Amino acid sequence: MTRPRIRIGMVGGGPGAGIANAHRMGMRLDDRYVLVAGAFSRSLEKSRQAAAELHVDPSRIYQHYAEMAQEEAAREDGIEVVAIVTPNDSHYPVAKAFLEAGIHVVCDKPMTDDLETAIALHELAQQRGLVFALTHNYSAYAMVRQAAELVRGGALGELRIAQVEHASGWAAARMEDDPHNKQAAWRLAPDQAGEYSVLYDLGTHAHQLLRFVSGLEVTAVAAELNTCVTGRRVFDDAHVQLRLSNGARGALWASMAATGNAHGLRIRLYGDKASLEWEQIDPHHLTLRHLDGHCEVLTHGYGGQSAAAERLTRVGLGHPEGFIESFANLYSDVAEAIERHRLDKSVPGADSPLPGSRDGLLGVRFVKAVAESHLAQGGWIEVATES
Amino acid sequence: MTRPRIRIGMVGGGPGAGIANAHRMGMRLDDRYVLVAGAFSRSLEKSRQAAAELHVDPSRIYQHYAEMAQEEAAREDGIEVVAIVTPNDSHYPVAKAFLEAGIHVVCDKPMTDDLETAIALHELAQQRGLVFALTHNYSAYAMVRQAAELVRGGALGELRIAQVEHASGWAAARMEDDPHNKQAAWRLAPDQAGEYSVLYDLGTHAHQLLRFVSGLEVTAVAAELNTCVTGRRVFDDAHVQLRLSNGARGALWASMAATGNAHGLRIRLYGDKASLEWEQIDPHHLTLRHLDGHCEVLTHGYGGQSAAAERLTRVGLGHPEGFIESFANLYSDVAEAIERHRLDKSVPGADSPLPGSRDGLLGVRFVKAVAESHLAQGGWIEVATES
Amino acid sequence: MTRPRIRIGMVGGGPGAGIANAHRMGMRLDDRYVLVAGAFSRSLEKSRQAAAELHVDPSRIYQHYAEMAQEEAAREDGIEVVAIVTPNDSHYPVAKAFLEAGIHVVCDKPMTDDLETAIALHELAQQRGLVFALTHNYSAYAMVRQAAELVRGGALGELRIAQVEHASGWAAARMEDDPHNKQAAWRLAPDQAGEYSVLYDLGTHAHQLLRFVSGLEVTAVAAELNTCVTGRRVFDDAHVQLRLSNGARGALWASMAATGNAHGLRIRLYGDKASLEWEQIDPHHLTLRHLDGHCEVLTHGYGGQSAAAERLTRVGLGHPEGFIESFANLYSDVAEAIERHRLDKSVPGADSPLPGSRDGLLGVRFVKAVAESHLAQGGWIEVATES
Amino acid sequence: MTRPRIRIGMVGGGPGAGIANAHRMGMRLDDRYVLVAGAFSRSLEKSRQAAAELHVDPSRIYQHYAEMAQEEAAREDGIEVVAIVTPNDSHYPVAKAFLEAGIHVVCDKPMTDDLETAIALHELAQQRGLVFALTHNYSAYAMVRQAAELVRGGALGELRIAQVEHASGWAAARMEDDPHNKQAAWRLAPDQAGEYSVLYDLGTHAHQLLRFVSGLEVTAVAAELNTCVTGRRVFDDAHVQLRLSNGARGALWASMAATGNAHGLRIRLYGDKASLEWEQIDPHHLTLRHLDGHCEVLTHGYGGQSAAAERLTRVGLGHPEGFIESFANLYSDVAEAIERHRLDKSVPGADSPLPGSRDGLLGVRFVKAVAESHLAQGGWIEVATES
Repeated sequence: MTRPRIRIGMVGGGPGAGIANAHRMGMRLDDRYVLVAGAFSRSLEKSRQAAAELHVDPSRIYQHYAEMAQEEAAREDGIEVVAIVTPNDSHYPVAKAFLEAGIHVVCDKPMTDDLETAIALHELAQQRGLVFALTHNYSAYAMVRQAAELVRGGALGELRIAQVEHASGWAAARMEDDPHNKQAAWRLAPDQAGEYSVLYDLGTHAHQLLRFVSGLEVTAVAAELNTCVTGRRVFDDAHVQLRLSNGARGALWASMAATGNAHGLRIRLYGDKASLEWEQIDPHHLTLRHLDGHCEVLTHGYGGQSAAAERLTRVGLGHPEGFIESFANLYSDVAEAIERHRLDKSVPGADSPLPGSRDGLLGVRFVKAVAESHLAQGGWIEVATES
Repeated sequence: MTRPRIRIGMVGGGPGAGIANAHRMGMRLDDRYVLVAGAFSRSLEKSRQAAAELHVDPSRIYQHYAEMAQEEAAREDGIEVVAIVTPNDSHYPVAKAFLEAGIHVVCDKPMTDDLETAIALHELAQQRGLVFALTHNYSAYAMVRQAAELVRGGALGELRIAQVEHASGWAAARMEDDPHNKQAAWRLAPDQAGEYSVLYDLGTHAHQLLRFVSGLEVTAVAAELNTCVTGRRVFDDAHVQLRLSNGARGALWASMAATGNAHGLRIRLYGDKASLEWEQIDPHHLTLRHLDGHCEVLTHGYGGQSAAAERLTRVGLGHPEGFIESFANLYSDVAEAIERHRLDKSVPGADSPLPGSRDGLLGVRFVKAVAESHLAQGGWIEVATES
Repeated sequence: MTRPRIRIGMVGGGPGAGIANAHRMGMRLDDRYVLVAGAFSRSLEKSRQAAAELHVDPSRIYQHYAEMAQEEAAREDGIEVVAIVTPNDSHYPVAKAFLEAGIHVVCDKPMTDDLETAIALHELAQQRGLVFALTHNYSAYAMVRQAAELVRGGALGELRIAQVEHASGWAAARMEDDPHNKQAAWRLAPDQAGEYSVLYDLGTHAHQLLRFVSGLEVTAVAAELNTCVTGRRVFDDAHVQLRLSNGARGALWASMAATGNAHGLRIRLYGDKASLEWEQIDPHHLTLRHLDGHCEVLTHGYGGQSAAAERLTRVGLGHPEGFIESFANLYSDVAEAIERHRLDKSVPGADSPLPGSRDGLLGVRFVKAVAESHLAQGGWIEVATES
Repeated sequence: MTRPRIRIGMVGGGPGAGIANAHRMGMRLDDRYVLVAGAFSRSLEKSRQAAAELHVDPSRIYQHYAEMAQEEAAREDGIEVVAIVTPNDSHYPVAKAFLEAGIHVVCDKPMTDDLETAIALHELAQQRGLVFALTHNYSAYAMVRQAAELVRGGALGELRIAQVEHASGWAAARMEDDPHNKQAAWRLAPDQAGEYSVLYDLGTHAHQLLRFVSGLEVTAVAAELNTCVTGRRVFDDAHVQLRLSNGARGALWASMAATGNAHGLRIRLYGDKASLEWEQIDPHHLTLRHLDGHCEVLTHGYGGQSAAAERLTRVGLGHPEGFIESFANLYSDVAEAIERHRLDKSVPGADSPLPGSRDGLLGVRFVKAVAESHLAQGGWIEVATES
């Protein structure tokens, strides 16, 4: 029986945008979405240009997201969900507009760039009973899902030490002056990405990945921020020591100045029975090292997979899947949630692997605590974990 | 300006089919196709079931591929191209039907399972002036494209030695008796996949990859075939020594009984200036080793990429892309070719990276020569390379 | 012409001792030493047993190191150098006795377990004009030497970020109660190894490796110590944030509870032009990643080696050398220094790669600062670097 | 109790010699030998120069090996064993002289360069009841020993496919004209190393490694030889297909023209239960891949080691050991054999891991069969395996 595709709209993602493409490819891969509306750019002309390329009906291109939220909500065939891929500082008002219009939201991380708005958005998302997903896509890699299952199943024993890093080299050189680098233009601009860009952009990914795999919360941080590139107006490097909710300790390193590193995302967790390691540069493998020195390497789509990982295996036989598939996995989870919501108005619960507004709130709190610790010369700052 | 999506149909790929999914995801990723017709299964009921899942209009589901070719050719909005994902023994009649109806063809490899049909199909494809693409998708990986460019640009110097293997472990155990294993059912059946299944299925990939990267032809082979799994009715392991068109030597190993190997595709080429290595388990890296011992590792989507590789980079910053993206790359090349054909009726020339009917013919000749050498106790058999 | 072998004695290293064997194999490899005297154990019987196995004349086995220092100094054929391989708490008195007797010293790290004795020993070593070497053997790996040269030659540009870890899993399980584990018996005993065992044992290696490769000093630390294994009486895990003398930042992780890790020594340095990575599990490779994404892998004993690395290459052609060779490299440097001292009474200068008493003193200061920071809830503590 | 060191002499290994150094370091590492006599060079002056550097009494330096054999055999403190490290063409007469003088022999591989002498030497070694060891040192790596044990213990099940290569890049460039390259001078000279140098030098290593790990014999070969470097007078590249004694098939690639490869030794064995892989560039790891896709990595000196591997672990905790240690392992086995021979005149039996004259004979037979197959245009040639 035909399951109708989910009608989705997009705010942001006009010509030259970066991550929006990953979102769109992620939507397409499993063919569960149809992109039918958008406010791709503040420039209506650019937005229409994008619409033409994306085969979106020009009559459903909007100048302003608020207008889009209202008009789409009013249509019988209006969008069921919106993907927000604008710079950080606009996530809050855009998400608010769509939630208030009764439309599900997929929001790029970080949820917001501000504690007040993060709290407000989390509350709003909860009140509205809508699906709210944050695109921490790395936690949607099959082997990351399997890692989380292994930890919960006790494979590592009691967790003692966590090492996580998202240390990219993407902005290791000065690129603020390049007028063609749209990414750099906003990610390195204090007013758009925040002074703590490296934390919002990369640190929140590492923070969520650690929480997702370990099942633990970060309860306190002690941090040192730095600006490596001369003349840069945001911090581009952050070293953070961690205390976790079970008493384990760890370190998180977020950087955009790690020269020569590609994306640089890696997690290592050490328990009293075994440790695990995963890194995005080789996402189809997960390494387990046991107390007795015995080492196992698990391969995506091959033997020894958990149900959660198998569900996310499209080809099998160890054929590599990558970054775009991680977005597709996340969008596939969103589709499941929306299809369930169609039936019973339910939203994903605490056991869902889908990152949501609580993750977004905790991410912003983490950034705030790191900043506070830095300003306090590295003293320990507690991070509230209730929500 | 909107570029209309290419209308595509599919023969094969009904419920439980394997590689058809990779084709469909490859089509979707860059949003240049719309799947509008199909003969997904010999069972009309199953075909309709697939159509429903795939959002294909039931009125364009056909019982038989010949009917589909005729009716679609007759429609103004008929398919422009068909993807053939049936078992090997039907590639020829299906492809013939669509070419004769004036419809472009994307055909799964091997092109056919028989020299006569291979010759006939190659001739037909040439005569008709249509796009004919063979899904040797591995040669569409960005780093494989870059490897080919490096070789042509002289980075390796004169090529001396080639080592290529497609040694999978997928059928290392006896699985012929498992009624649920559809892949095994036909790939291990002499009547459907041929006695030389390991060569048609995996050997032709290795053969094409070697030719694609090296720019050389295989001119003679000396081979030994083996059946590793007791009771199996097809050969499942092949060792082939190679003589190449410039006098270089090499070896090709194709296997489906390489226990514990995932897909096991790897190529190494040694020239008088440098060597290169690429393997599909880690497709986003390409290693170059120079005569003086200096070693370089190139990363997909990162520094030092060629234009051909950059063109195939969707996300960048070293974010991994995989098997599905290799299909998407190939389908993207097919789309370019079809869009060009719309304008000027041209077909891809010898400089196109798109594998075509000549590659298919050479692949079948390679299989035949290997079989002949095996039957002749390993003596050298020449392989014709003109076409 | 024959160069007479250097006469060496040993304090510690009796039956069951661990690292003493690495010292002895290191001495033997290049055949520049002859072991002629020893106080291998506090038990004279065990010491004689060791002497018999080691082909040492029983008449030169001593009950006490002080007696050994005096008697050997008095002999015309007395030892020229002593290797001290006792637990940390006795390094000071033993080294003092031999230096005062005019005998060169090779001392296991850490130099001492106490700031006062470290200062005293450093002063004594300087006053006496004798060779004093500390066995930070990791900095004697050929590729580490090459790394240091590359940094000094500007290959990385200005250093910005340092990541160094010596995170072993050797004591991830409780082993304090095993009477046969001699290593555990003293390394986990607060009275012999100090409460800060993980820092003295592993942290000082990481600290010296960082200083050796980077050419920078650690000027301040902010730290968190932890005891992972229940009931353990020493800290077994340490996370340390670093400020370096040029303003760079970094992190150092020392652990003996990193379950499943072998020795776990790794260094990564990021400059504004390139970064480098080396890890002891794969010591014959050194990876350089450039700002533009270009990556190079250098291989020990192969192309592109520096003079310093070539000097330490025994076999070449990329044949792997390991931990024992790193000791041999260090002992080879000591032999050079002693042979020079024979001629002109000189001692290695600041440009020597041989770790000496200044490194030992800085190592102890580092441990003290880390402990102080931990006790001060992670606040930044400055580390004096003059000596 | 003191175990007296074994008195050893050396033929070959004068100034500039290559592999002799590895032999001498291998002897020294575990301190079970004392080098007391030598005919290091045909030039007595050079031999005396070597003796001085090696601390060998000049009165025991001989002009000719025959003189050395006789005189040392006549001394009460004469050598018990000789190490022969001359070019291939002199192995036979030298070994013969020492065996006939009742002196044990450690002989560099290949045993001889000729079938007649190989047979004669094997017979002589057997008749004399002396220890005869061939330095196929790679089979003395701890993880190779463990691999052999795993295979014999059934971990792989029935072996089906073998892939072994010793494909070095050491002579990928023309170096015949360099007067300072002593290695090249004889290894590329048909009169000293034989026309089949690549087989004698590297092919026999691969052949022995395969036999050692698999426990199978090579019963037939089909081969293609090539000379990659223009003007070279020996074959420098060999592709060999294999039939093994249990019916398994495989391939062996030996090359000295594999541009950019270091030593290039690797073995992969596939059974019906699992496969294994080991390569010398990373000798401290052994990878096992099971039929179900589960993969294990074993680390030298760490958990999960067999008794045979533990016996060859000098440092433990995963600290890397390398090429020199593999020689030391082999010399350690020779020492065990000689010490046993001192007691009971026994020689190592078929279960000994020490490569002996039978291995040498089979190696020469293998080379001859490969050459014959090449000359017969790649036809299958049987290799006798009885001895």
